Amino acid sequence: MLPAESDPLGRIMDGALAARQGRVIWIGADRELEKVVELDGDQLDAAGACVMPGLVDAHTHPVFAGTRADEFLARVSGASYRTQQSDERGIASTVRATRDADAGTLLELTQSRANRFLANGTTTIEAKTGYGLDLEHEAKSFAVLRGLAGRSPLRIVPTFLGAHVVPPGVDRAAYLRTLIDEMLPAFERRAEFCDAWCDEPAFTAAETRAILSRAKALGYRLRVHAAQLAPGEGPQIAAELEASSADHLEFATPAQVDALAKAGTVAVLCPGANFTTRGQRPPIDAMRRAELAMAIASDLNPGSSNAESLPLAMSLACVAWGMTATEVLLGATVHAARSLHLEGLAGCLRVGSFADCIVLDVESPEAIPYYLGVNRVLQTVAGGALWHLS
Amino acid sequence: MLPAESDPLGRIMDGALAARQGRVIWIGADRELEKVVELDGDQLDAAGACVMPGLVDAHTHPVFAGTRADEFLARVSGASYRTQQSDERGIASTVRATRDADAGTLLELTQSRANRFLANGTTTIEAKTGYGLDLEHEAKSFAVLRGLAGRSPLRIVPTFLGAHVVPPGVDRAAYLRTLIDEMLPAFERRAEFCDAWCDEPAFTAAETRAILSRAKALGYRLRVHAAQLAPGEGPQIAAELEASSADHLEFATPAQVDALAKAGTVAVLCPGANFTTRGQRPPIDAMRRAELAMAIASDLNPGSSNAESLPLAMSLACVAWGMTATEVLLGATVHAARSLHLEGLAGCLRVGSFADCIVLDVESPEAIPYYLGVNRVLQTVAGGALWHLS
Repeated sequence: MLPAESDPLGRIMDGALAARQGRVIWIGADRELEKVVELDGDQLDAAGACVMPGLVDAHTHPVFAGTRADEFLARVSGASYRTQQSDERGIASTVRATRDADAGTLLELTQSRANRFLANGTTTIEAKTGYGLDLEHEAKSFAVLRGLAGRSPLRIVPTFLGAHVVPPGVDRAAYLRTLIDEMLPAFERRAEFCDAWCDEPAFTAAETRAILSRAKALGYRLRVHAAQLAPGEGPQIAAELEASSADHLEFATPAQVDALAKAGTVAVLCPGANFTTRGQRPPIDAMRRAELAMAIASDLNPGSSNAESLPLAMSLACVAWGMTATEVLLGATVHAARSLHLEGLAGCLRVGSFADCIVLDVESPEAIPYYLGVNRVLQTVAGGALWHLS
Repeated sequence: MLPAESDPLGRIMDGALAARQGRVIWIGADRELEKVVELDGDQLDAAGACVMPGLVDAHTHPVFAGTRADEFLARVSGASYRTQQSDERGIASTVRATRDADAGTLLELTQSRANRFLANGTTTIEAKTGYGLDLEHEAKSFAVLRGLAGRSPLRIVPTFLGAHVVPPGVDRAAYLRTLIDEMLPAFERRAEFCDAWCDEPAFTAAETRAILSRAKALGYRLRVHAAQLAPGEGPQIAAELEASSADHLEFATPAQVDALAKAGTVAVLCPGANFTTRGQRPPIDAMRRAELAMAIASDLNPGSSNAESLPLAMSLACVAWGMTATEVLLGATVHAARSLHLEGLAGCLRVGSFADCIVLDVESPEAIPYYLGVNRVLQTVAGGALWHLS
C-alpha cells in the first residue's frame, strides 16, 4: 500500500464510505466506520472489489437519432471522416434523423445511452446538443436532456452546440446570424456551456471567435472542438477566451498547448474518435511538459465514436497513445470534473462530494485499461443510490 | 432485404426459429412459424432486435490465475511483449500463479470468464491449457475445463497446449521429452486439439514439427501459434501437417498463405493481441487473394489480450486492419466453427444446428463492429436455453 501522500490516486485499502442525501459524509478505514458513523439505511458490501469515484465523461453527444454504421464501414475500407461530411452525409444526416424524431423517441434513445453510460461506470456526463441546429430542434434536444434528468440518476451537464456545423440547406451567413442573435440568447439558461467546432468542415477561426465571444458575454462558459482534423486557431481561441475545455487537439502546436495550460483550460482528449477516424496522436508529450490537465472522454456520437464506455477510451489512450494508467484515471475523473467546474464534487470521493461511485472487478484501478472492451463494473452508485436497469 | 442467394449472411427479415433438445428444428419467416411448428415450451420475443448465431471463439486461453496488468502498463510505456518473456515474467509468471491455484479457485476464475464470454455473445470457445506445463498441472487445467462444462452452457472445445513455452526452471530437452513421451499420450482423450507456439520465445520449427507430428500420430487434430512475433516456419508446418488452424500469422509470407489455403487450414487472427502488443498487420490482402478462410478470435489471455469480447475483436479487425463487416462476421461464426470442425453445428442457424443464438440491440449484424467496446448483446441462448448469470 502506498502512503496516501505519494499516491496520486489517494487510495485507501480496506476502506469504507458513508453517504447521506446523495453526499459523502465520511470516508476512511473500514474498521473505523462503525465507531464514527451511525449506520442506518442501505449498505453495500464491496469486499474484494475496487471502489472508486464514478467516472466523469467531459465530452458526449447523446441526443441523436439514426445510425451511421454505413459511414463507419466505409471508413474501414478507406474513406476519410472529413470527406464524409457533406449536405447529405455525416453530421447532416444525423441532423435530419434527429429533427425527424419526436421528443418521446429521442428521449427513449437518449435514455438507452444513459443506461449504457451507467452500466459502464460513468455517473456524470457533459451532454451536447448540436443535431437540431435550429431554434425548434435545439430546444427539443434541451427538453430531452431535461426529461432524461428526471428519469435517470446520471448527472447531466448540458452544453449548447449550435455551432456544430452549418446545417444542410441553410445559408452560412444567415445561420450565423440566427445562431448569434437568436439561439445563443434563447438557450443561455438551459446550458452550462457553449461549444463550437473550429475545424475545416465546421466553422472558421473568425466565426468561432464571433460565436464564442458572444456566448461568453451572455454568461456561458466555453468549450471548443479544436484542431481535430487539421491545424488551426481553435486551441488559441480556447486559451484567449479562457474556455473551460479545448477538445480533441490532435493538431495543437506546442505554443497552443502552452497557452491552454496558462489559461487554465483542460484538454479533453477523445481516443475513440481518434481511433475510428485514424487520426494522428495528439501532442501528449507537449501537454505533459506544459502540465496541461488532460481529460479522457468517450465523445459518444454516431459518426466517429459510437461508445458510451470510458474504460474503453482509457484502454485506447494507453495502447494507442502511450498514456499511463494514472493519467487516464485522473483523465476520466478529476480532470474531467475540473473541465465541468465540478472539482471536489464529481470524480473524487471525499466528505461533501457527490456519493457517486462504482464497484469494479479489478485488482487495482490501474488495471482498468488492461481489461480491453469488456465491462468490469459490477455496480454503479449514483447520488448515494444503487443503480439498476429499470 | 437482400435475396438470400446474394447475401453472404443469408439473413431472414421478420424471422423466427424453433428448437427442441438443444437443436434448431425449424427456421423461417415469423408468419409461417405457427403453421409448421406446434408451439410448446419457452418462447422468446426478439421483436425489433437482431438475432444471429452465437459467436464462436476459435482461440482462447481461459484457464489461468494471476494478473499481468503490470506488463500491460509497461508495454504502454514502451516495453515489448517479446522482451517481457523470461523465466520470471510473461507467460512464466502466469504458469507460476496457475500452478499455485487450487482447482476450485481456478474453476471459479474460469467460470467468471465463461460468464463474460456468454454475456458478450460467445456460445462456443476453443479453450487451451498451457499454463500448467507439467503432467500434474496440465491435468488440473483439463479438470477445470471439464468442471466448467458441467456448470456452464458455454460450449467448450479443449486444446492441449503443453507446447506453449518451456516452463521456467526446466531443461529444454528434458521438457520436450516429457511433453512428447508422457504428456501427449496422457491427454489425447481429454483434448480435441494439440497446439504449439512456433516463435522465438517458444519453440523452434524443428521442435514444433516433432511435437505436432507426434500429436497427429496419436490422433490429435492440430492448431499452431505461427509467425506472431517474427517470420518463421510455423505457417508452413501448419500447412504440411494439415492443421485445422494456423493462428496469429502477422509475419506469414504470401507463399505460406497460399500453402495454408491449399491445405484447408483456417487462419485464426487475433486482433486484441495484435493491438496491445503493437504488432504489424497480418497479410490480410494475401489471405483474400488466396481465399484463405479467416476466423477472428479474442485470444483471451492475461498477457496480450485480456478480453472475452468477440465484438471488440471484430471492431479492432475492422478499424486497425481494414477488414470488412462481412469478413469479421463470418470470422466470428462460420470460419471459426470450421476451424473447430463444427461446420453446420455452431456459428450458423439451420435445421440441425445447435440452438445457440444471441439477441442484439443493433440495426443489422454489420453494425456490430460500429459499437466499439460497448456490449450490445441483450440475450444469449445456448443449447436452446436462455442464459442468465447465476
